Amino acid sequence: MKILVIGANGTVGKAVVAELAQRHEVIEASQSRGPHRIDVLDSGSIRGLFAEIGKVDAIVTTTGRLHFGPLAETTPEQFRIGLDDKLMGQVKVVLAAHPFVTDGGSFTLTSGILDIEPVRHGANATTVNAAIAGFVRAAAVELPRGLRINAVSPTVLTESLDKFGPYFRGFESAPASRVALAYSRSVEGVQTGRVYRVG
Amino acid sequence: MKILVIGANGTVGKAVVAELAQRHEVIEASQSRGPHRIDVLDSGSIRGLFAEIGKVDAIVTTTGRLHFGPLAETTPEQFRIGLDDKLMGQVKVVLAAHPFVTDGGSFTLTSGILDIEPVRHGANATTVNAAIAGFVRAAAVELPRGLRINAVSPTVLTESLDKFGPYFRGFESAPASRVALAYSRSVEGVQTGRVYRVG
Repeated sequence: MKILVIGANGTVGKAVVAELAQRHEVIEASQSRGPHRIDVLDSGSIRGLFAEIGKVDAIVTTTGRLHFGPLAETTPEQFRIGLDDKLMGQVKVVLAAHPFVTDGGSFTLTSGILDIEPVRHGANATTVNAAIAGFVRAAAVELPRGLRINAVSPTVLTESLDKFGPYFRGFESAPASRVALAYSRSVEGVQTGRVYRVG
Repeated sequence: MKILVIGANGTVGKAVVAELAQRHEVIEASQSRGPHRIDVLDSGSIRGLFAEIGKVDAIVTTTGRLHFGPLAETTPEQFRIGLDDKLMGQVKVVLAAHPFVTDGGSFTLTSGILDIEPVRHGANATTVNAAIAGFVRAAAVELPRGLRINAVSPTVLTESLDKFGPYFRGFESAPASRVALAYSRSVEGVQTGRVYRVG
């Protein structure tokens, strides 16, 4: 398969590339590094990438920012961060890129464990990750040409405990290499509308 | 209790007012009619309403627009309609109004059955309604002073079958008077972080 990984320079992205490149042609795209640049918030940039690389059999997105902070002090502008970035970035990829995915191909988006496990200061993350699960559930029944779509919802990454550990006290972390297996299940499997949880 | 119903002129809002006004003082607010006007997209307008009416014991929101249309033809701008309106409208009410709700008071938001039952042309609705469920789940663990928050997720309204019936073939509808009972359960009950489904 020819697989596009968007967010290939992130912790998860690198692990997904390492897992899939063992068996497939992987094209790495990211916002600020490497030969293939993409701004997922800009539909024109998304379409422009396919003018360079042609059609693909699968697209993986591992991008997106969220807001963490006390709910009682959160402003609407802060709350929009996750909606504008993690949710709409991935939605825009699906809306703009589906014509460039071969029949029966797939999208695999990135959610996160906070979708069903709320934590203090995590309301934006829970809302956005739950929205991504909803989008996948709905898009799966409507995408044309047998296109599939799933999401991976990982627990906190072992590699990210320095930064995010305080939000996830008591959670078991997972190394990115384990999380990457779930992306492989989605890309190389047959299911659609699923959230693969790595807890 | 003193209960503010935002969206009081809608089909659900009117039924909620009729149900709750039997036992409580109900203040009806809406965007374009009646003595108490509110624009839920404008945090200043939300706060301004409380300068008029003072603190309340419960807030019910029954507002929000969604986009319906073929996923493959949906633009990011169309997809934003539900995020900007139904999701952020209700989120903005919680973020701006929680200081004006008495200790132990409650919010009851409005979701919809498409959150877990996707239909053709309903990706925006499923995404937004799933996000509302996520927001309620997360806000429930973090709101101060014992404030509670739930959502009601109704099936298609019997009163709305003329307009929305084609999206909901085979679904059992519910009259607004039945849906209103779920709002009463949330407002007059003790639970938090729940989605009350009326199917």
